[in-house]
Amino acid sequence: MPALSSVQALVFDVFGTVVDWRSSIIRDLTAFGAQRGITADWNRFTDDWRALYQPAMDEVRSGRRPWTILDVLHRESLVVLLERHRIDGLSDADIDRLTRAWHRLDPWPDVLPGLARLKHRYIIGPMSNGNVGLLTRMAKHAKLPWDVILGAETARAYKPLPESYLRNAALLNLEPAQVMLVAAHNSDLKAAQAAGFATGFVARPTEHGPGQTKDLAATGNWDVVATDFTNLADKLGC
Amino acid sequence: MPALSSVQALVFDVFGTVVDWRSSIIRDLTAFGAQRGITADWNRFTDDWRALYQPAMDEVRSGRRPWTILDVLHRESLVVLLERHRIDGLSDADIDRLTRAWHRLDPWPDVLPGLARLKHRYIIGPMSNGNVGLLTRMAKHAKLPWDVILGAETARAYKPLPESYLRNAALLNLEPAQVMLVAAHNSDLKAAQAAGFATGFVARPTEHGPGQTKDLAATGNWDVVATDFTNLADKLGC
Repeated sequence: MPALSSVQALVFDVFGTVVDWRSSIIRDLTAFGAQRGITADWNRFTDDWRALYQPAMDEVRSGRRPWTILDVLHRESLVVLLERHRIDGLSDADIDRLTRAWHRLDPWPDVLPGLARLKHRYIIGPMSNGNVGLLTRMAKHAKLPWDVILGAETARAYKPLPESYLRNAALLNLEPAQVMLVAAHNSDLKAAQAAGFATGFVARPTEHGPGQTKDLAATGNWDVVATDFTNLADKLGC
Repeated sequence: MPALSSVQALVFDVFGTVVDWRSSIIRDLTAFGAQRGITADWNRFTDDWRALYQPAMDEVRSGRRPWTILDVLHRESLVVLLERHRIDGLSDADIDRLTRAWHRLDPWPDVLPGLARLKHRYIIGPMSNGNVGLLTRMAKHAKLPWDVILGAETARAYKPLPESYLRNAALLNLEPAQVMLVAAHNSDLKAAQAAGFATGFVARPTEHGPGQTKDLAATGNWDVVATDFTNLADKLGC
């Protein structure tokens, strides 16, 4: 396990860990529906959209499909779901607007105070499957004070492939053990740890809504386990 | 020429445009020399170091050498110069420390006030031949409020190759005409304009010291010509 004193950068999973994607997308879709007079089960629609996330990336991870950014995958999934939910009459511009709902996600309430403290000591940045343009616009929307934008696109590999972690550490001129991944997902931390990263778990028990059953607690031997980002800052002495 | 109203991101040349590399490196080397009792012409040494910058990148641009980040090129040039200036007895750690002087450069005095204003309206980031780790650490040192870190390394191509501009625009999900390069160097702007970028010239008449003869004024048909970053913010209505 890496020595925590050698960690120079904290990189963060974003969807679920930094931002409450589910509430944000439901709110965005509901507002759009109200504005256009479209009735739908937007909670269900949001969960269905997220359910297509891993299968879409699997096509790229497996090599069956060449490198494709998440904005494109999100849009394709949206088109499938609009048909499945029998919502029609939307223009290309409407579909683009809804796809960019993923650029307008709001952070959990502890995120900005926590990151402000962590930024004093560490390089901080996302390390997300979101593309650079998405993460950059989300940061401006949510006022996330990142030092650098990293993710699948800067590595041209989706998590949890090892290259996604290793190439991003190299972009910071750091060894894997000098980088900690902070995530609310045990599977992401497991892959990061296998790549040599330090690991920090932050619980997000309502990421998937009130009935969430997975990732309610740390299930691995992570270097730090925190209840939220301010607690993480406490535990790292920031 | 791109319509300025379509510009969504301002990307900046860094060495010379954002930071006063010459004064900063001279100061860093002089302090190191004083600390170690090494006498040398550090002004000359600094100019010699910078003179090896373009030839080192040319090896990579031409394909004679595989992709190599600027930190590595800076270190190799330093080793050559230490021998040429007959400075010996430095450890590997000393050489690493001096190489990282390029991570500790100070901005021109107008940069922070100008960027604070420009950041309200635009995505702002470096688009430099410096590598991501260098630019990230420089931003923390100098408190540069970048939204994203872009450069030769994220494009795997050194400016002024067209791919260095085009791939970085694509990382922002933007067309070239939606991105303005801001630079103190007419040659960089010429290449960016050829790639379809909007262009902004900011004069830095003492980048190379008191006897500077080139880039004293705009020599191309640039979209904006400004005296400094606050004047750029004025001209863009920020």
